Amino acid sequence: MSSHPAADQSPTQDELDLLHYKSRIDRPVRIKIPELQRDERLRHVIFSGQFNADMLEELGGTADKIRVLSKIREGQDFLIKLLHHKRAMLYFTQPSTRTFLSFMSACQILGITCNEVRDPTTSSETKGETRFDSIRMFSSYFDLIIMRSKLASLAESCAYLMNDLDETGNRSVPIINAGSGADEHPTQALLDIYTLQRTFQFSDPKDSPVSSRFEELRKDHPDLTRGLSHKVYGFCGDIGRGRTVRSLVSLLTNYSNATIIFIAPDDPTLALKDDLRRRLIDRGVRMFEVDSFEEPIDGIPVIQKLDALYMTRIQKEHNNPSDEQHFAQLDLSRYKLSHDLVSRMKPYAPILHPFPRDQHFGEIPPEIDDDPRAMYFRQARNGMWIRAALLATIFGVDHQISRYYHEEIAHA
Amino acid sequence: MSSHPAADQSPTQDELDLLHYKSRIDRPVRIKIPELQRDERLRHVIFSGQFNADMLEELGGTADKIRVLSKIREGQDFLIKLLHHKRAMLYFTQPSTRTFLSFMSACQILGITCNEVRDPTTSSETKGETRFDSIRMFSSYFDLIIMRSKLASLAESCAYLMNDLDETGNRSVPIINAGSGADEHPTQALLDIYTLQRTFQFSDPKDSPVSSRFEELRKDHPDLTRGLSHKVYGFCGDIGRGRTVRSLVSLLTNYSNATIIFIAPDDPTLALKDDLRRRLIDRGVRMFEVDSFEEPIDGIPVIQKLDALYMTRIQKEHNNPSDEQHFAQLDLSRYKLSHDLVSRMKPYAPILHPFPRDQHFGEIPPEIDDDPRAMYFRQARNGMWIRAALLATIFGVDHQISRYYHEEIAHA
Amino acid sequence: MSSHPAADQSPTQDELDLLHYKSRIDRPVRIKIPELQRDERLRHVIFSGQFNADMLEELGGTADKIRVLSKIREGQDFLIKLLHHKRAMLYFTQPSTRTFLSFMSACQILGITCNEVRDPTTSSETKGETRFDSIRMFSSYFDLIIMRSKLASLAESCAYLMNDLDETGNRSVPIINAGSGADEHPTQALLDIYTLQRTFQFSDPKDSPVSSRFEELRKDHPDLTRGLSHKVYGFCGDIGRGRTVRSLVSLLTNYSNATIIFIAPDDPTLALKDDLRRRLIDRGVRMFEVDSFEEPIDGIPVIQKLDALYMTRIQKEHNNPSDEQHFAQLDLSRYKLSHDLVSRMKPYAPILHPFPRDQHFGEIPPEIDDDPRAMYFRQARNGMWIRAALLATIFGVDHQISRYYHEEIAHA
Repeated sequence: MSSHPAADQSPTQDELDLLHYKSRIDRPVRIKIPELQRDERLRHVIFSGQFNADMLEELGGTADKIRVLSKIREGQDFLIKLLHHKRAMLYFTQPSTRTFLSFMSACQILGITCNEVRDPTTSSETKGETRFDSIRMFSSYFDLIIMRSKLASLAESCAYLMNDLDETGNRSVPIINAGSGADEHPTQALLDIYTLQRTFQFSDPKDSPVSSRFEELRKDHPDLTRGLSHKVYGFCGDIGRGRTVRSLVSLLTNYSNATIIFIAPDDPTLALKDDLRRRLIDRGVRMFEVDSFEEPIDGIPVIQKLDALYMTRIQKEHNNPSDEQHFAQLDLSRYKLSHDLVSRMKPYAPILHPFPRDQHFGEIPPEIDDDPRAMYFRQARNGMWIRAALLATIFGVDHQISRYYHEEIAHA
Repeated sequence: MSSHPAADQSPTQDELDLLHYKSRIDRPVRIKIPELQRDERLRHVIFSGQFNADMLEELGGTADKIRVLSKIREGQDFLIKLLHHKRAMLYFTQPSTRTFLSFMSACQILGITCNEVRDPTTSSETKGETRFDSIRMFSSYFDLIIMRSKLASLAESCAYLMNDLDETGNRSVPIINAGSGADEHPTQALLDIYTLQRTFQFSDPKDSPVSSRFEELRKDHPDLTRGLSHKVYGFCGDIGRGRTVRSLVSLLTNYSNATIIFIAPDDPTLALKDDLRRRLIDRGVRMFEVDSFEEPIDGIPVIQKLDALYMTRIQKEHNNPSDEQHFAQLDLSRYKLSHDLVSRMKPYAPILHPFPRDQHFGEIPPEIDDDPRAMYFRQARNGMWIRAALLATIFGVDHQISRYYHEEIAHA
Repeated sequence: MSSHPAADQSPTQDELDLLHYKSRIDRPVRIKIPELQRDERLRHVIFSGQFNADMLEELGGTADKIRVLSKIREGQDFLIKLLHHKRAMLYFTQPSTRTFLSFMSACQILGITCNEVRDPTTSSETKGETRFDSIRMFSSYFDLIIMRSKLASLAESCAYLMNDLDETGNRSVPIINAGSGADEHPTQALLDIYTLQRTFQFSDPKDSPVSSRFEELRKDHPDLTRGLSHKVYGFCGDIGRGRTVRSLVSLLTNYSNATIIFIAPDDPTLALKDDLRRRLIDRGVRMFEVDSFEEPIDGIPVIQKLDALYMTRIQKEHNNPSDEQHFAQLDLSRYKLSHDLVSRMKPYAPILHPFPRDQHFGEIPPEIDDDPRAMYFRQARNGMWIRAALLATIFGVDHQISRYYHEEIAHA
């Protein structure tokens, strides 16, 4: 054992810590799923791939109940006491006002007290503290860590760290990934799915452009069914860099007979990435890549075929100089919506967007906000409900919510 | 419809959004008042001009009750549950520790959970999000938006945005203006009024320099009455740029026979602005502008005539280079208090200051803090109570407070 | 009385404010203790020297009860309502994520709502507000001020300011020192003591490397007793600049027959400071200064003699250029732990560290984390419990906790 100080070339402890978990990280998701559970209950939320259709159904149901309970005073009083003894740490070293506030609200609905570290360079780090020491500190004080980081796999590593601590009899808390690296943003995918669930129930006028007209619609659209199966999903814009797109597309493969159409320029940065394409092909998903809403599929322009449209922002902040050059030669205006385009969409087809939208690019101009198909503001509020449902599930109070709901509301 | 990208000269969506409400903003305040209410209840708080003497009386009464309830354990437990299901967003893009903390405290007294965005450049804005999209995001997650901005009329526009959303069946929440542009800071004016209400009740020794000596005082001051009417109010210092002065003066015109004296240098930046002078003249308010506490009015030096003195800080941070030059030629020391000056004031006359005071200029030197007329620290705490009363009123629990107070306290 | 503006050379009001309390600050701690109490109850927490062995015992007992109650749902519900009507201000102008979050958690366990000012340059300060005006503002809104500052004696001055306000019938709140200047960090010392209390109870397997093996251990270590008396305490590393070392060493002098060994380089910056050495000698503490773990005391190398080892980080951020030069000539690797060293320690001897540790220097390499003697992560969580106990004591609900504990838990 050497007691010489480490040379500058040797890896830092932070680097060693991540290396330590590399072999576990490199396994396929399906192998990892049991490790993210405890007693067959969801414990850590790291990948959208953790969720199957049944779990999504269950979560959506819990979210629906929380939403209803939140509208009446007794329900609010019930919810706010459910987890008022729990404290969460929101550790957001990659900033995101929207995701942050949505998680805060979700916690607060259930009475969870929130604490935050949002500054990427906290005092402890400047004093040489490792990331894992910081995470262990948080786990000393809090009952849950919700983390967002530029570093791919950090959330996953932290989940393994917590499992290891658990096994050695140490304190261990659940980890929720609120966006990590370029790949995963599982709770965004959950809220997108929940929004589609609400819309394709065709029941609540606030969540569906057509609500009660389901039977009437079936005359024009005889194949239309309730639920997420048998639908055509369009994704438009920055497909290559959109981690929300990756996460949602993964979840949609859980539903039978989903068609997925990517509407993106034929550009190495913006188009579908090889790995996702291959994954979709492997799973036998019907998939198209087009460069315009006008391109025909089965003889009909894409815009008219869609059962749902997911718009995205061109993530300029991630451009490198060569991107700028390429983009100047593309007609990016094709990846913006307009009144004309929207009017040609199916009357029941929701428009989603993970937000924020870009006022300078204008992928969704504000004149579309009043169209009944515009679901993007509802989507934000849905994020709060589904995250509250997720928290309730992790802390095991989902059944309590269900029981209260059935006793006090459904039977009242 | 063009799909060309917008040229750089064309207005941004943010600019268009504000233009959209320009015609509504340009109307006189009294026309706007009904739009800031819902079901004849206060909904948005945008202007001090929304409040008449009856409403101020009512609010002060609610604040008094909250204050009393906060002193006993049962009352605290009652208050903290009143609105524990509500979540507020404090959106402070113009910093103000004092106003911020005062609102936080007011929320917390009633159990409202607070969330904040204080950084003027949030991540969403750098991604091209419009202000209105941000506000709609906040309204998705929270039940109230308290906002402070350098931008005049932003709070007002947001109130109209919320009203429009309401009319189209969308989610809509109340807006409170915590300071906007150069003109309005309505809740500061409310706390100033509340402090004067407390002082001129001549009952609580903490709120009045003379408290129980009212009848005795009437021997020397036969015209002295309880309440804010028939009083001489002095405003000293930076009258031209003080939005707290503007807001408070507006409210004082609600009281009969108020005399208002401005003690400020004869300087275009610091002296009374034309629009406010004209407004006061239009309302028939008895008004004087003097440049020293020594200047006689009806043969008596101003300092001896005042029933209340409102001191202000010279807002150096808003100086432009020409101001610096002008100010160097003025004798600004005239706009500072001293023991000598205070000792010549009426024994019951409170000294107010919106705070912070400036230790380098010294408009109120600390040796005056022990004088019973010094009300500026009480004033800060009063701000918390009156803001809590405002929140209770907006959320419609003011009558519940009143009922509880009368049943549990007054009759106990 | 002059009305000329102050010349630049004259002291600022901030400087005058501190001067005002200088004579009180310069008194010996034991004279000051009564002023930090009210009605013989702890009010302000400023120095570790305020605490004697009885108080430490009492506080530890309260912390133990809070810890047990927090594990059951009824206990949590009881605790969270205890002080839910109280609001704390965490005024941290010197950053410290760990101390900050620990206090937040402690407050939240008892239901205290937290507010924070962490930016050293708040808007009020830039407007010329004095520190004391800021503190009075906080005392207007909040029921407790927890403060951390680079400025020695600021917390102490604020405690006197509060006492003075109290005497003149003004609002006054308790002050807790969360680290001030180079000298005092009393709550860190309390958590260190609490960790030692837990370890030397030899009962809880999580808190003691040997737990139930106490009687067995006494065969090899016949002098071993429960409790903090009759123990050998080692402090290693940056002794000169470690305020946690200073504070803890002061508290250890409360225990009979404590031996204290400082393991530090013979360097004017890092070695024991004269004043602390003199204080220990005056109190008759058995004390050694060595420059290595291998140095023999009574013929046995230090590492084998220790009943507890307190490691510290070299506080590089406080280095001046001459320090850098000196340090380059020292063999600092002697002040790092290794598996070898730890294996030679007594089996029951806990390793503590105030954290963060420095991954680049490596005073405690992570491979030691799994050793049962590693108590530094427990220590962090202990900080939360002892701070909660402190808050309960200040607000006078410690007896309520004790009563509830005995009625609901101990007798159940």
